[in-house]
Amino acid sequence: MTTTTPLALRQSLQHRIDNKTKPPGSLGQLEDIALRLGLIQGTTHPTVNNPYIVVFAGDHGIAATGLVNPYPQAVTAQMVLNFIQGGAAINVFCRQHDLGLLVVDAGVNAAFDPAAVGDRLLSKKIAYGTRNYLEGPAMTASEVQAAIGAGREVVAGLAVGGCNAVGFGEMGIGNTSSAALIMSVVMDIPVTGCVGRGTGVNDDQLEKKKATLQEVHNLHRGAIAAEPTASTILQCVGGFEIAMLTGAFLEAADRKMVILVDGFIATAALLLARLSNPRILDHCIFSHTSGESGHAKMLEFLGARPLLSLGMRLGEGTGAALAFPFVRAAANFLEEMASFESAGVSKNGEA
Amino acid sequence: MTTTTPLALRQSLQHRIDNKTKPPGSLGQLEDIALRLGLIQGTTHPTVNNPYIVVFAGDHGIAATGLVNPYPQAVTAQMVLNFIQGGAAINVFCRQHDLGLLVVDAGVNAAFDPAAVGDRLLSKKIAYGTRNYLEGPAMTASEVQAAIGAGREVVAGLAVGGCNAVGFGEMGIGNTSSAALIMSVVMDIPVTGCVGRGTGVNDDQLEKKKATLQEVHNLHRGAIAAEPTASTILQCVGGFEIAMLTGAFLEAADRKMVILVDGFIATAALLLARLSNPRILDHCIFSHTSGESGHAKMLEFLGARPLLSLGMRLGEGTGAALAFPFVRAAANFLEEMASFESAGVSKNGEA
Repeated sequence: MTTTTPLALRQSLQHRIDNKTKPPGSLGQLEDIALRLGLIQGTTHPTVNNPYIVVFAGDHGIAATGLVNPYPQAVTAQMVLNFIQGGAAINVFCRQHDLGLLVVDAGVNAAFDPAAVGDRLLSKKIAYGTRNYLEGPAMTASEVQAAIGAGREVVAGLAVGGCNAVGFGEMGIGNTSSAALIMSVVMDIPVTGCVGRGTGVNDDQLEKKKATLQEVHNLHRGAIAAEPTASTILQCVGGFEIAMLTGAFLEAADRKMVILVDGFIATAALLLARLSNPRILDHCIFSHTSGESGHAKMLEFLGARPLLSLGMRLGEGTGAALAFPFVRAAANFLEEMASFESAGVSKNGEA
Repeated sequence: MTTTTPLALRQSLQHRIDNKTKPPGSLGQLEDIALRLGLIQGTTHPTVNNPYIVVFAGDHGIAATGLVNPYPQAVTAQMVLNFIQGGAAINVFCRQHDLGLLVVDAGVNAAFDPAAVGDRLLSKKIAYGTRNYLEGPAMTASEVQAAIGAGREVVAGLAVGGCNAVGFGEMGIGNTSSAALIMSVVMDIPVTGCVGRGTGVNDDQLEKKKATLQEVHNLHRGAIAAEPTASTILQCVGGFEIAMLTGAFLEAADRKMVILVDGFIATAALLLARLSNPRILDHCIFSHTSGESGHAKMLEFLGARPLLSLGMRLGEGTGAALAFPFVRAAANFLEEMASFESAGVSKNGEA
């Protein structure tokens, strides 16, 4: 198929979809996904091979202050151990859907015992958490580049292993704050309109979170306006796991992988990746609309129509993991369904 | 658990859900499903065992007129053979999700060769299609009872085989018309507001479909008003596959099975089943909102919030099959996720 033009491929795919034994369009968004899979892979016979969820974990300097997060920072490391032991929601859903799960230490504020975590945790640790962005940049320019590069490396390794479809998740106490700050500058809207309850702040905590993040925004907006790149934004208000997500998105697109986009934080990283690669959305399938309030606005900004809207707001890549069966279903109906001709079924208007 | 009161069981389930390692409520509708599964099965450890999709197929006298349907009536039998050969969408999705598939001839207008279909088609044929309800009742009272009874028998057989979760689908050229007529009388709204494009009528055909069904409605509304029961409605404007669906819903609820409700036609049958068993919704999980225009109104009438909204409008139980993973995910997270205590993860507000 490599000599086929994109238009000819699109027409061949649409013809194949329309000749399956069903009224045209009756599989709804599954038909859109089938088309997208074929266009990404450059074939009328797309497949889902060795799919993975990658969870990047990192800590945020701001979280130690308690100004934005109801859970203590220690929960990031505790949840990483929970992932390693198989007891988190993402473990359950990856097992159920036969997805590989790769957990990456992007910069957790804890030293994991190698004897305890073994090869179940991939260490790409940049530092023991970012700096508090209330006081200065969250990371250095070289830390940003190291983190983006590490995210690329992780995805390159999966691709070499035969994976052609991947979803990215994250864990990091305080990272809805970083995502809200990124959303504000990329979408150019007030930061207070980007802030949500995260893991569950109450009304008072929400006001404090908004005021704190407005202060952070005021501190960094000059530097970001001077050079509004993904790198600058990450340096000022990012997180190590968000920087790795950004690199991971870019590498997955470069390698023509199918990307399942998870919720609020993953989509914030995608906003940054899109600054570097404006065509990245061609590779993306949006898995769900998070219950975190800003996510719907991000999706609208990107013109995205997600598959699911279940009120989930857990992160970890759980939305992507739950949406994977729809990607498989799209590939499967395209490959396995009979055509009107092969099944001897009359088409609309033919007796 | 049999001695537990429903309130105590609900509290135990909620406690179990809230102590999993995630912010409270962060799994959204999956948490609602977990609660529902537990309440249906009367346990804090619900399971999904030997799940099935049952597809009931039947023909409609009206379809021979061509007044309501763009596809010829022969497509019903052709699609049944497609199911038997494994080439339809429902086959693909049942294979993907490891669901049993049972195809039932409720009253297709064709004689299937037993040598060709073998035991892959369960014959419960009431007749070779219903009568044309433009001219009189679609079926006799005894045919209605036979069809409801057959639907019950099919589900009873599955339950005896260890199945505790089931989704119902249908195939029948013309059956969106029957479903629209049922919707109109049960919900007491004008029939023209219930009629949609079905498998894909164009604007002219849609006007003809509406006019035809208004005429059918006028012919039967007196008889239905005199005795507004499921049996009367089915006799006047039903279909054999819809009557079997009605019996299947009732039996599944009686046997405390988890029921996945598919789209427009399946929900029309549920409207009838609910007339006989007002508590039947306690057993139902609504899988998706169909692209068929009347379905959203039916769901609103029932106060239902479906899992998916993918613009699908294929029938066959495809929506139910695609939603099954969410039922499994609910049971799995409840059974397999660690609790805050077991994983050593700090709760909100605890350092």
